[in-house]
Amino acid sequence: MKGKLIGIGVGPGDPELMTLKAVRAIEQADVIAVPVKCQGEKSVAFEIVKGACSIKDQTILPVIFSMSREKQERIQSRKEAVAAVKKELEQGHQVAMIALGDIGIYSTFMYVKKELEKEFSTEMIPGIPSFCAGASKALISIVEGRESFVVMPSYKNASQLGQALEQYHTVIVMKAGRKINEIYKILKEKGYLGSTSVIANCGMPSEYIGRILPEQEYGYFTTLIIKQPEKMEIR
Amino acid sequence: MKGKLIGIGVGPGDPELMTLKAVRAIEQADVIAVPVKCQGEKSVAFEIVKGACSIKDQTILPVIFSMSREKQERIQSRKEAVAAVKKELEQGHQVAMIALGDIGIYSTFMYVKKELEKEFSTEMIPGIPSFCAGASKALISIVEGRESFVVMPSYKNASQLGQALEQYHTVIVMKAGRKINEIYKILKEKGYLGSTSVIANCGMPSEYIGRILPEQEYGYFTTLIIKQPEKMEIR
Repeated sequence: MKGKLIGIGVGPGDPELMTLKAVRAIEQADVIAVPVKCQGEKSVAFEIVKGACSIKDQTILPVIFSMSREKQERIQSRKEAVAAVKKELEQGHQVAMIALGDIGIYSTFMYVKKELEKEFSTEMIPGIPSFCAGASKALISIVEGRESFVVMPSYKNASQLGQALEQYHTVIVMKAGRKINEIYKILKEKGYLGSTSVIANCGMPSEYIGRILPEQEYGYFTTLIIKQPEKMEIR
Repeated sequence: MKGKLIGIGVGPGDPELMTLKAVRAIEQADVIAVPVKCQGEKSVAFEIVKGACSIKDQTILPVIFSMSREKQERIQSRKEAVAAVKKELEQGHQVAMIALGDIGIYSTFMYVKKELEKEFSTEMIPGIPSFCAGASKALISIVEGRESFVVMPSYKNASQLGQALEQYHTVIVMKAGRKINEIYKILKEKGYLGSTSVIANCGMPSEYIGRILPEQEYGYFTTLIIKQPEKMEIR
C-alpha cells in the first residue's frame, strides 16, 4: 500500500497555536519531514511541534530547500527533497511535512505536493498564519465589516505599497525588517504612522509589538499591519 | 478582582481545526459568550466548540448582534451585548467570547473589545481563517514565493474585482454566493475560470469544492480563490 502525504501548518510559533488536527496527524505519522535551508540547521517549525506533540517512533526526515543564489542549486535541492519524501511514501509510510504558519501561504510543501500528488494520496491541514497571530498579539483587528485587505511577502517599492494603501483598508507587509526605515518614511509622509503596528520576532525573547519607530532594527521576521488612519485602534 | 475578556477564533467548522490554546481557554473560562443574530438562534461557532471542548460549569451567555436594516436596532443590540459581557466581567468572571474563523477577521468581538478593553484585561486568541481551510480542502496554495494576495468580504462590483485581479496574484472573495453568476461572467470574460476554486458550505453536508460552474447556486458561505491563469493548479 502506498503512503499518504500530509502537509501541515504548525502556526506562528507558540505550540499551543497548533490545531488539534495537526497534533493528531503528526503523532500518527510514520515520518515527519522537516524542511531546512541547509544540512544541520535547526528548524523553528520542528521546535513548535516538539512543544505540543508526543514524538515517539516517528522517523525525522530533514529535507533541504536551499536558498542559494545559484538557481541550479535550488532546483537540485528541491529534487532531492522530493525524492527523499517519495522514497518514504513508496514504502507505504504516512509522511507529515511541516511548515511554519499556514500550509497554503508561502510554504515549501507546495513544491513537494506538485511533484507527488498525482502518484500519492495528499492532504493539507491549515495552520494559523503569522499575521493573524500578530494582530491578536497587538490586540487589533485585521478587517471589520466591509473592509478588504492585502498581504504582501515583503516590501518591494514605494509605488507598490502606496497603491495598496490607497486601495485597501488594511495592508500587511511580511518580512519587512530589512526595509523598515524606507517603509517608515513612506508611512510618515502619508500619515499612517499612528495606525501601523509592528510585530517583530513574535514569540521569541526579542519580541516587539507596538508602534513603528524611526531608525530601529526589528529583525527579519517583522510583520507590519497598516490600517487606514481613521481607524486609530493602535495601542 | 475584575474578570478578563478573551476573544477566541474557533476556526472554520471542523472542531479539530481549533487550536490547543482556544480549547484550553474555553475550558477554563467561567462564561462562554456566544454571538447570535437573534434570540434562540443556533450558533455554528458554539457547535464547533462543543465538538472539541469539555463544557462543564461554564455559563453560556448568548449575546445578540442584530443584523436588522434599522441602524438604531443594530446599535441598541450591540449596546446590550456589551452590557451583558461587562456585567460578567465586573463579577470577576473570565469571559471567553467565541467567533467563527480568526478573531481578527470580520468578527463581532471587536465591537465588544472596543468598549471594554480600557476597563478590563483583554486577550485575543487567533483561529484558522475560513479561506486558509478552504485552500487546504481544495489542495491549492494561496500564495507562493513573492506573490501577494487580497481578501475581500464579498463581491461589490466588476471594477473592484477587475482591479484586484490585475494587481494581485490571488484574489479571495468571501460570501460570494449571492453574486456568483455575475462573478462567473467576469471570470469567463477575463480567462480566469480554469484557475478559480469554489469552496462552498465548507464542512457541511452541502459542501462543494471544485471549479466554478455556470448557473449554479452555492449558498451564502461560498469562498472563491481566484489565481492568475498561468498558475493552473486547479483540480
